Amino acid sequence: MSEDLADYLRKNDGRIREELFDLLRIPSVSARSEHKADMIRTAEWVRDSLKSLGFETGIHQTKGHPIVIGEWRKAAGAPTVLIYGHYDVQPPEPLELWTSPPFEPTVRDGRIFARGSVDDKGQFFLHIKAVEAHLRTRGKLPVNIVFLIEGEEEIGSENLAEFVSANRELLKADAVVISDSTMYAEGQPSILSSLRGLAYFEINVQGPAGDLHSGMYGGAVVNPATALAKIIATFHDEQGRVAIDGFYDSVREWEPEIREQMRQLPTDDATFLKEVGAPALGGEHGYTTLERLWTRPTCEVNGLLSGYTGEGAKTVLPARAMAKVSCRLVPDQLPRDIERLFKAHVARVAPKGVTVTCEHLHGGRAWKAKLEGPIFDAARAALESAFGKAPVITGEGGSIPVVSDFEEMLGAPVLLVGFGLPGENAHAPDEWISEENFRRGMVAMAEMWDYYAAAVAAA
Amino acid sequence: MSEDLADYLRKNDGRIREELFDLLRIPSVSARSEHKADMIRTAEWVRDSLKSLGFETGIHQTKGHPIVIGEWRKAAGAPTVLIYGHYDVQPPEPLELWTSPPFEPTVRDGRIFARGSVDDKGQFFLHIKAVEAHLRTRGKLPVNIVFLIEGEEEIGSENLAEFVSANRELLKADAVVISDSTMYAEGQPSILSSLRGLAYFEINVQGPAGDLHSGMYGGAVVNPATALAKIIATFHDEQGRVAIDGFYDSVREWEPEIREQMRQLPTDDATFLKEVGAPALGGEHGYTTLERLWTRPTCEVNGLLSGYTGEGAKTVLPARAMAKVSCRLVPDQLPRDIERLFKAHVARVAPKGVTVTCEHLHGGRAWKAKLEGPIFDAARAALESAFGKAPVITGEGGSIPVVSDFEEMLGAPVLLVGFGLPGENAHAPDEWISEENFRRGMVAMAEMWDYYAAAVAAA
Repeated sequence: MSEDLADYLRKNDGRIREELFDLLRIPSVSARSEHKADMIRTAEWVRDSLKSLGFETGIHQTKGHPIVIGEWRKAAGAPTVLIYGHYDVQPPEPLELWTSPPFEPTVRDGRIFARGSVDDKGQFFLHIKAVEAHLRTRGKLPVNIVFLIEGEEEIGSENLAEFVSANRELLKADAVVISDSTMYAEGQPSILSSLRGLAYFEINVQGPAGDLHSGMYGGAVVNPATALAKIIATFHDEQGRVAIDGFYDSVREWEPEIREQMRQLPTDDATFLKEVGAPALGGEHGYTTLERLWTRPTCEVNGLLSGYTGEGAKTVLPARAMAKVSCRLVPDQLPRDIERLFKAHVARVAPKGVTVTCEHLHGGRAWKAKLEGPIFDAARAALESAFGKAPVITGEGGSIPVVSDFEEMLGAPVLLVGFGLPGENAHAPDEWISEENFRRGMVAMAEMWDYYAAAVAAA
Repeated sequence: MSEDLADYLRKNDGRIREELFDLLRIPSVSARSEHKADMIRTAEWVRDSLKSLGFETGIHQTKGHPIVIGEWRKAAGAPTVLIYGHYDVQPPEPLELWTSPPFEPTVRDGRIFARGSVDDKGQFFLHIKAVEAHLRTRGKLPVNIVFLIEGEEEIGSENLAEFVSANRELLKADAVVISDSTMYAEGQPSILSSLRGLAYFEINVQGPAGDLHSGMYGGAVVNPATALAKIIATFHDEQGRVAIDGFYDSVREWEPEIREQMRQLPTDDATFLKEVGAPALGGEHGYTTLERLWTRPTCEVNGLLSGYTGEGAKTVLPARAMAKVSCRLVPDQLPRDIERLFKAHVARVAPKGVTVTCEHLHGGRAWKAKLEGPIFDAARAALESAFGKAPVITGEGGSIPVVSDFEEMLGAPVLLVGFGLPGENAHAPDEWISEENFRRGMVAMAEMWDYYAAAVAAA
């Protein structure tokens, strides 16, 4: 491949960095209604960034946060690629655990720290800059490219499927590319072959109408926090399996060759344990750590709140208790089936004397890739060129609910190629992206379009 | 009895009300370090109030919040009474559930709403005004009176026992009077014969070193919130009994005559249920509601916190989970024994893969009164005079840890005579005291000193 793209990106590194930092400074927290204006500002920022490169752009309203579309369709006869990303970020709390402020990007030890740095602003932004390298050096792209950057990924992409479904012609593509995942290890580029799905619930337990004095009333009223704990305690059996009736009924066994490939990946529980900093690992008996993370479903408490949680002691019998609980799903578990099973389970184990409600906040299907065709060949070649190493095939415990939607509705293969790294704190304080991965990722994604155009032409 | 005291209190009703409201406006939340200055301001307010009546006063520093002492010892040959109260209040949260602001006293339907209105500012303040009635109408009191108003009752009176022990001479009294409890029903004055004790714990469960992405890590790490729920779920058996080994070993059976007296009190589970607003009552099988509240120990969750608790969904695997849990104790359970048993239980049931710590925040012993002697005779007479009805003997589920300390260290009987009412929201939003009880309580407590002086003189 010619060196013009990499040269361009190298020479413009400082300016690109400044632009990325501008993007990271906008607190586009989709879960919080008070950030509505920030969401619009971010969408406009992305739109303007694409517009300045000559893309036809539009901001599409949804019932929630808007979707940014940018189209460049001047490569007559060449294939069309849809690049998906999301400009929304996770809430930054707890703020006190950030070393530097979440919305003030800060570089330390070759890492750019900021909420959204890796998930996903930094990753879709590198695609924009990869495209810029083509347009500014050659005045054109070798393929047609449509960007779809949404603002609701962190809250379940609730309005995306409807948008994709209603705009199949606009979004029609020969391949979909998404960078919203991690590489297997530092210096080891990766192509992601599976994602877990999600079914996210909020359980509310209402006891007395209001908070009560725990001395004056304690002993004669069912404590909603105790009731909630009893409900949660039924979610797993002694072997770490999810103890919800029917939960595993539709779990597909992983193919032997993929399990074997997975076992050949260099892995080390001691390093993983050190990374998470827990006293010991845990999980479902009979599976390795990678299998637990990539191939097995879970049921995790994401949040608990009841009564008095401040400094010191308050003798209150709480009126209510709340838990956020989410299940990670694997093929072929469907969110709507898990919703039904989960709600039935909660209703069955709910103690008397309290009112228990369970709401499904959002869900997404699990996914497994077919690892063949020109887009995968192009990705392998471009990653090897930019990183000096052939990519490995990995799985992933997280969810990108839209992947299945794209594959189904557009009938195009989805390539998941990410530039995060283990320990990147994607949903935690001190989120970061590696500077080197950001730079190499830009080069790889720029070069990928040359490889892809050539592969399609040769086919 | 002469009508001068009641007349005085009636004529000064408006001014007394204003003074009470001034006292209620100070946010003396002992549990919160940011209220340190408010605590000092409240202590000075109480001191000045007593000083203006001719009391010798002092503010005594402790390791925590100061203790106010006021002495009037000019009734040579007459008995001495120690009046105890506390000027600290519970935290007001959740603020959004207050109809009017917690520190802006507001009257609605004959009730004064404010944090501390009944627990305990309104109740010790009525003693100060009762004493004022004597001093302003007659220039003297028929008994010697020492006020001890502390600032740490809501956080366990941690420094009071040491102060009482070190000041036995100063505090030496023939009787101790405390108004920090409720009447059995509206219009029904009551003398309280028992209190439950308390052992208050905070449990912290630490899993990973920091919050993790629940997709990327979920399934291979023990979730601390799930672990905490499993621990809490072991606190009770299916019969609602506390399932901690040895928990009931030192529980004394209630005397048959007191149980009988208790059964004769007009009681109504439907009304109680309506008052608490829960879907159903609960608790230990085999006991009536009053028995559960007054004679049986409990284990209640007072607070829960873990992970993300804001709006919407956040897919976080939390680093830690916290519970505040307190046991109400009955004679002869000792807080230090329960602390030992509770900690051993938590350590025994703690799941692997997390680090569980359990701290005893504070405790206090349960108490049962001996219902005889001049102070009880005086109380009965004064209550009947002011309320037009003889008092009943009640129990109480709450704790006033210092009662046992006073009885032991000063060797004096303790009279618990309270003017709160069921449903007063003592530790909850919309705390209130009845205006009528406040007024009649002042009259009763003023007249009590005449009855008491006469009873002691006659003995």
